[in-house]
Amino acid sequence: MSEAYVHGYDPRENERLQDQAGTLVDLLHSDTSYPSGSVALEAGCGVGAQTVTLAQRSPGARFTSVDVSADSLAEAKRTTEAAGLTNVQFQQEDIFALPFASESFDHVFVCFVLEHLSRPVEALAILNRLLRPGGTMTVIEGDHGSTYFHPDSSAAHRAIQCLVELQRLAGGNALIGRQLYPLMVEAGLQAVRVSPRMVYVDSSRPGLVHGFTRKTFTAMIEGVRKSAIEAGITDPESFDAGIRDLHRTAEADGVFCYTFFKGVGQKSRSV
Amino acid sequence: MSEAYVHGYDPRENERLQDQAGTLVDLLHSDTSYPSGSVALEAGCGVGAQTVTLAQRSPGARFTSVDVSADSLAEAKRTTEAAGLTNVQFQQEDIFALPFASESFDHVFVCFVLEHLSRPVEALAILNRLLRPGGTMTVIEGDHGSTYFHPDSSAAHRAIQCLVELQRLAGGNALIGRQLYPLMVEAGLQAVRVSPRMVYVDSSRPGLVHGFTRKTFTAMIEGVRKSAIEAGITDPESFDAGIRDLHRTAEADGVFCYTFFKGVGQKSRSV
Repeated sequence: MSEAYVHGYDPRENERLQDQAGTLVDLLHSDTSYPSGSVALEAGCGVGAQTVTLAQRSPGARFTSVDVSADSLAEAKRTTEAAGLTNVQFQQEDIFALPFASESFDHVFVCFVLEHLSRPVEALAILNRLLRPGGTMTVIEGDHGSTYFHPDSSAAHRAIQCLVELQRLAGGNALIGRQLYPLMVEAGLQAVRVSPRMVYVDSSRPGLVHGFTRKTFTAMIEGVRKSAIEAGITDPESFDAGIRDLHRTAEADGVFCYTFFKGVGQKSRSV
Repeated sequence: MSEAYVHGYDPRENERLQDQAGTLVDLLHSDTSYPSGSVALEAGCGVGAQTVTLAQRSPGARFTSVDVSADSLAEAKRTTEAAGLTNVQFQQEDIFALPFASESFDHVFVCFVLEHLSRPVEALAILNRLLRPGGTMTVIEGDHGSTYFHPDSSAAHRAIQCLVELQRLAGGNALIGRQLYPLMVEAGLQAVRVSPRMVYVDSSRPGLVHGFTRKTFTAMIEGVRKSAIEAGITDPESFDAGIRDLHRTAEADGVFCYTFFKGVGQKSRSV
């Protein structure tokens, strides 16, 4: 069994990452950096939430960050320029219709994107074709089914389920994090290694109580209130009770747990 | 400790507990070792599944390992003697009626015990009194509500729920792992730090697929089949469907996740 750890997965690594992570950014990204001179594609950069971190951690690499939304790209551009970054260029593109030649990138980075796609394996296979042999693909996704807390609350679980259901109705999958390994393997990636990045929050970690439990996770669930009620998935009273119980987990005796998954695979050298 | 013990004491169960400790040793125990000359209490040693690891990692410390069951202690004694350990002495005791003087231990270690108790905070407070000021308490518990997998299966979740329910009926709490922080704080421990120890299993880790998903977790759930059916919590068909789906998560495209929690706190120096 300790052999399994030797081959790459070290559960203690997650603990170390978490202890060292001042922020969620560190937990998810501290072990991603690309060598100087390498060429990387960020597929689905959104408003650039990860782009700044990515480009700062690999100052000698050149990034092409694409997104389907012009508004998001404009925001991403402002953010990276404000950070003084000059190694990122933005392009408006659809992941399923990318204009790049095969094998034109050393690295591909995909974060919080697959959860929104109805054909995640197809997207990964397209991105895999853009990688040069031996190039790497990094994929990061959350998994809302990894959420549990104290005090436990079925109302809170039902409120979370509203987001899961809305994502499903939109063609996505909010439970995709746990599936990264089989999805990446099915898309043809080699030597796939997935590691969980668990966020554990109790009141001895006040930064996470505020920054993650309240302002990241609970705020995200609160954000679908109107859509979930309009879709008939919940009613105001039930939803608000769930949100109250999520905030309850941020009190002194509360605990909150959520897990992100990070997968790294390689483009086959024998294509 | 006077509550009924859900896991039972049959030889197969004994073997499973040994297997579990063998496969999870690094994950759970690699960061626990006590200085030479220190005196430690293992409260609830059971069949000694953790005792060997504990005593081997702290060869200069002296351990007193107690359990309420004479049969378990006899087995624990055989196991530690077979391992050539001479720094452990065993005593048959109830955690709620320990004969030791206040402040007589430098360290207290409690692993997979609180889940069986209806008054976990009282137990921790009793153990805290036995610690010298500045001494440490280490507590490790699983949390069956931390279990999720791919492919997802409500039948599998219902089978797991059978064990949760049996544990509850016996006065215990199978979801206690997430609660370690508030429980230890309420018991009076200082500087409590809890860290999750997540077991992530996919088919790139065959040792864990076999050793954890199948032989530890699924075997543990299978072990309550008879009790759960007799208690009217499930029926044979439903339960067996859940077990089949748990085994399904051990196939090539399956993924299995479970989290243990480890808390370390300190006895106040200002008592």
